[in-house]
Amino acid sequence: MRVIIIGGGGMLGRKLAFALGRRGEIGGRAISHMALADIVDPAIPEAPFPVTTHRLDITDKAAVDGLLAEGADVIYHLAAIVSGQAEAEFDLGLAINLMGSINVFEAARALGTTPKLVFTSSNAVYGGEIPEPIEDWTALNPQTSYGAQKAAAEMLLSDYSRRGFFDGRGLRLPTISIRPGKPNKAASSFMSSIFREPLQGDEAFCPVGSDYLHCYLSPRRCVENLIIAAEVEAEALGQNRCFALPGRTYRLGDMVEAMRRVAGDAPVGLIRWQPDRSIQNIVLGWKARFNPAKALALGFVRDDSFEDNIRFFLEDDIER
Amino acid sequence: MRVIIIGGGGMLGRKLAFALGRRGEIGGRAISHMALADIVDPAIPEAPFPVTTHRLDITDKAAVDGLLAEGADVIYHLAAIVSGQAEAEFDLGLAINLMGSINVFEAARALGTTPKLVFTSSNAVYGGEIPEPIEDWTALNPQTSYGAQKAAAEMLLSDYSRRGFFDGRGLRLPTISIRPGKPNKAASSFMSSIFREPLQGDEAFCPVGSDYLHCYLSPRRCVENLIIAAEVEAEALGQNRCFALPGRTYRLGDMVEAMRRVAGDAPVGLIRWQPDRSIQNIVLGWKARFNPAKALALGFVRDDSFEDNIRFFLEDDIER
Repeated sequence: MRVIIIGGGGMLGRKLAFALGRRGEIGGRAISHMALADIVDPAIPEAPFPVTTHRLDITDKAAVDGLLAEGADVIYHLAAIVSGQAEAEFDLGLAINLMGSINVFEAARALGTTPKLVFTSSNAVYGGEIPEPIEDWTALNPQTSYGAQKAAAEMLLSDYSRRGFFDGRGLRLPTISIRPGKPNKAASSFMSSIFREPLQGDEAFCPVGSDYLHCYLSPRRCVENLIIAAEVEAEALGQNRCFALPGRTYRLGDMVEAMRRVAGDAPVGLIRWQPDRSIQNIVLGWKARFNPAKALALGFVRDDSFEDNIRFFLEDDIER
Repeated sequence: MRVIIIGGGGMLGRKLAFALGRRGEIGGRAISHMALADIVDPAIPEAPFPVTTHRLDITDKAAVDGLLAEGADVIYHLAAIVSGQAEAEFDLGLAINLMGSINVFEAARALGTTPKLVFTSSNAVYGGEIPEPIEDWTALNPQTSYGAQKAAAEMLLSDYSRRGFFDGRGLRLPTISIRPGKPNKAASSFMSSIFREPLQGDEAFCPVGSDYLHCYLSPRRCVENLIIAAEVEAEALGQNRCFALPGRTYRLGDMVEAMRRVAGDAPVGLIRWQPDRSIQNIVLGWKARFNPAKALALGFVRDDSFEDNIRFFLEDDIER
């Protein structure tokens, strides 16, 4: 089977590519070729199949059509402008997160082979005046342009799937923590950096208070879920192809104590609590409590506790 | 104040234009100019202010920008490809219902004056596997491309409003009955024609059974709601600018009996019950029971009974 990862140079795309390189298969079917596309040059994993890399701007419809022209059995569409940047650069967010997604959807449709298409949406489609816990049938109510653009793409993904243009699976990701690498322009960036930087010996700034409640998923479990998403039977997904992935909801102060239990007192001492109103304006509009019944019934996975997230970071990602 | 009605040649646009011509004002502010734009030539109402008409294809971004270039205080965006046609012609539906709406949203944003923008969405954004009654916070789950395209536009309308690009108000219309004129390509067309045609002395075909349950609003009350939508204070609307208008849910057989009470036995005898699976496939996926709490709290109106709908048709629209 042929696999394409759009956004294959991003954090999740890279981890997914390397995981597929190690596995060599999805759902028992051997991968014959994997294409990694991104605006940056993706890292090439070891793999028992050929891996090609492609520079791609998903706002360029002809380029997206070209990438998919040789066919695909599973298309991962992970490319996005993150929340903070989509808030700062509205036009760019709309162009990539919605129009770029439509380019991907149209190219997948043009194949005429009903490929599986795994799309990463976000819990940022929720927010504001909706009741918690979030159920699978709770209204999307995004309070960021990022969330609104993802929500609009979700509506199309389910419709393209209903029509048989492709076989879509839209995963609303909880905030991924602990992300490796550097801080990015996501408003949620601190939700990784206040652990990652201290665990690597550096100080980090926390823009919200220790009572901040939010829902998280580790990169390791997220990548497992991306693979499960390409394995689930279409019939099991129902009419709405988009649903919240299971995460765990924690108080920030309890996450810090989890880091203390796993890694001792030193990292905790490197967190600087420094309220930032512009970050708070975004992240306080997000919802924290979820009942991801559909995803759990479909076999998607989550971490057992935030100690898992700390340990997975130390095992998979720490740089020092 | 300057008013623009995009879709001003359609059934609701025409009734709205004539109602505004009679009123001369919205929310106590005199109308100084009204522009009616459509792909057909709109009818020009009597009015105490100048009325201009404009041929417009909303997929033509430059044309939409040109229409709005002189400024607007209230923009009505009523233009759409209806459900049956958007199901048959997917690309056309996407181009008009989503991309065309984005052209309107961008042109309104470019004014820099935060005009009011009243958008007609549809109860077709609901459907399938969601619990009834539909609450204001129930997930959109469209089971038609028309509904999906409206739902995607809704997500953007609330976001453009949150950002202050315009002051949006998205009304999810119940099925309008009794529509005047001719049957159209909407799957819901029969929900008017089985009353309209018999009341005008012609026979009509009903593709579903008498137990079919659905939610309706008369054209007269709908137009009143379109005007209320431009009068409601932005602060009262909350974060989600889109909500279901109040309608009334009736069993088709009871609607037929309402027609008998108002207009006698003869029209009822002109209904031919002729099941049509392709129509049923669309309309049986729609939801019937709503709790439009937000709209009612905001002062939007509905009919008292289906006898109202029959009487309003006889008073406002009958052709014989």
